[in-house]
Amino acid sequence: MLLQNIKETRLYLKEQKRLGKSIGLVPTMGYLHEGHLSLIKKAKDENNIVVVTIFVNPIQFGPNDDFEKYPRDLKRDYNLALNAGADLIFNPSVEEMYPEKSKSFVVVQELTDNLCGLSRPGHFQGVTTVVSKLFNIIPADRAYFGLKDAQQVAVITQMVKDLNFDIEIVPCPIIREEDGLALSSRNVYLNSNERQSALLLSQSLCKAEELIKMGENNAEKIVDSIIASLERDSNCNIEYVKIVDFNTLKDLKILKNKFLIALAVKIGKTRLIDNIVMEVD
Amino acid sequence: MLLQNIKETRLYLKEQKRLGKSIGLVPTMGYLHEGHLSLIKKAKDENNIVVVTIFVNPIQFGPNDDFEKYPRDLKRDYNLALNAGADLIFNPSVEEMYPEKSKSFVVVQELTDNLCGLSRPGHFQGVTTVVSKLFNIIPADRAYFGLKDAQQVAVITQMVKDLNFDIEIVPCPIIREEDGLALSSRNVYLNSNERQSALLLSQSLCKAEELIKMGENNAEKIVDSIIASLERDSNCNIEYVKIVDFNTLKDLKILKNKFLIALAVKIGKTRLIDNIVMEVD
Repeated sequence: MLLQNIKETRLYLKEQKRLGKSIGLVPTMGYLHEGHLSLIKKAKDENNIVVVTIFVNPIQFGPNDDFEKYPRDLKRDYNLALNAGADLIFNPSVEEMYPEKSKSFVVVQELTDNLCGLSRPGHFQGVTTVVSKLFNIIPADRAYFGLKDAQQVAVITQMVKDLNFDIEIVPCPIIREEDGLALSSRNVYLNSNERQSALLLSQSLCKAEELIKMGENNAEKIVDSIIASLERDSNCNIEYVKIVDFNTLKDLKILKNKFLIALAVKIGKTRLIDNIVMEVD
Repeated sequence: MLLQNIKETRLYLKEQKRLGKSIGLVPTMGYLHEGHLSLIKKAKDENNIVVVTIFVNPIQFGPNDDFEKYPRDLKRDYNLALNAGADLIFNPSVEEMYPEKSKSFVVVQELTDNLCGLSRPGHFQGVTTVVSKLFNIIPADRAYFGLKDAQQVAVITQMVKDLNFDIEIVPCPIIREEDGLALSSRNVYLNSNERQSALLLSQSLCKAEELIKMGENNAEKIVDSIIASLERDSNCNIEYVKIVDFNTLKDLKILKNKFLIALAVKIGKTRLIDNIVMEVD
């Protein structure tokens, strides 16, 4: 089923809750790939009803970002989502979600100071605000987010805890192509040459993983090795390469406990991100 | 019934919702007076279950505000609330509401730029954050707020609309003593001399109302007349006297449509607020 209206969506889902059904929510910006489908399948395993939202949220894009040209294909998404197990696709218009300029925002501090929060000011405020709106519209028991956006998962988990949202956040692993490229709706922007360069993201992370497994624990040295790998390719324009504590997202000098190696790189005009999570004693 | 734990409160209220009961919420900081009781009674008229929350919210007080000495009397409040029709009093500790320093906040812009928002920076962020938390804990159908805090009502109404909270905000009229003093938990701070001076708040608003009814529509002249009334008493230390559009809370020069005349005055060490809403053609 496809609904584009908040009132109808709420009415339908309230009735499902009244019938005792559990609801899993998969918020997306559409142009679904296997990463999204893995979230939908997991949500279907764990809930009676799965709601997939498809909404390209303008307020999480900066003025120079790709809001206008972000890929959209509702018909394709609708079929993919249904086949993966979705019961309801909620696809509101911008006017339905923002009938007037919003004066209210949800902000998460500290966790948004680093990584993508640093290079995309306002991005996470847009994310936490729209996710709060979706949580208020859809009475979900669980919401599923991919760890490719590791910072997003951390920020939303913090928000849910701090603001007492009655929902469980379920982080799900990154899905990759066979050659290692992390799935992203933005991969469609890449030409074949850029597609080849984009492999360097996952490859440089793999090399870093090996270095760490061999005993390297100096974050700067590991970051430098990643940067060196990326800089060898003239298509790669590094936005950041960072190693941060998994819980605080603050920069680490010496690796310890659970940490995140995260990077953002422009390949031509396409901004891609990737990361791995590791743990050392 | 008294509950102090979020989990138990949620469990109990979810069961009530499952049974089809409607829930009215009256958020308070306790030390209940007839103003609060009027909200509870109205909530009882309109809902099956009434939840009164009693929580002195530290994050809406500034460093020089009266958080520590704010009056508290749970036993008295409990009995007053029950007698007025409350079914559940939710009285969490600060540790229950903020187990760690919150990183997440709800902010409402523009409407918080004037009046109390101007003189109490951070106050409304504290209010909207705690009210969001309460809305997420308590699955209420309606929430009741007194119009003495007219700006608070405007800000929360905006937040509910912008963030799609599934709750109706019910604004309720100011309750006054027979001599006109607006009820406030902070009135207990006043000595008998200050109590007399405090009457000037409502009296100066009444005079302004008369001026307007006689045809005065110049906001500055009306504000000046209120200031003149207040300044005659050396106990009165004016924080602000303003006439603002009821919807935007922006300063008016010429009265039109629906507007709010609002003032904040320190009587000795006690900060009091009062207001009236009027409409002209």
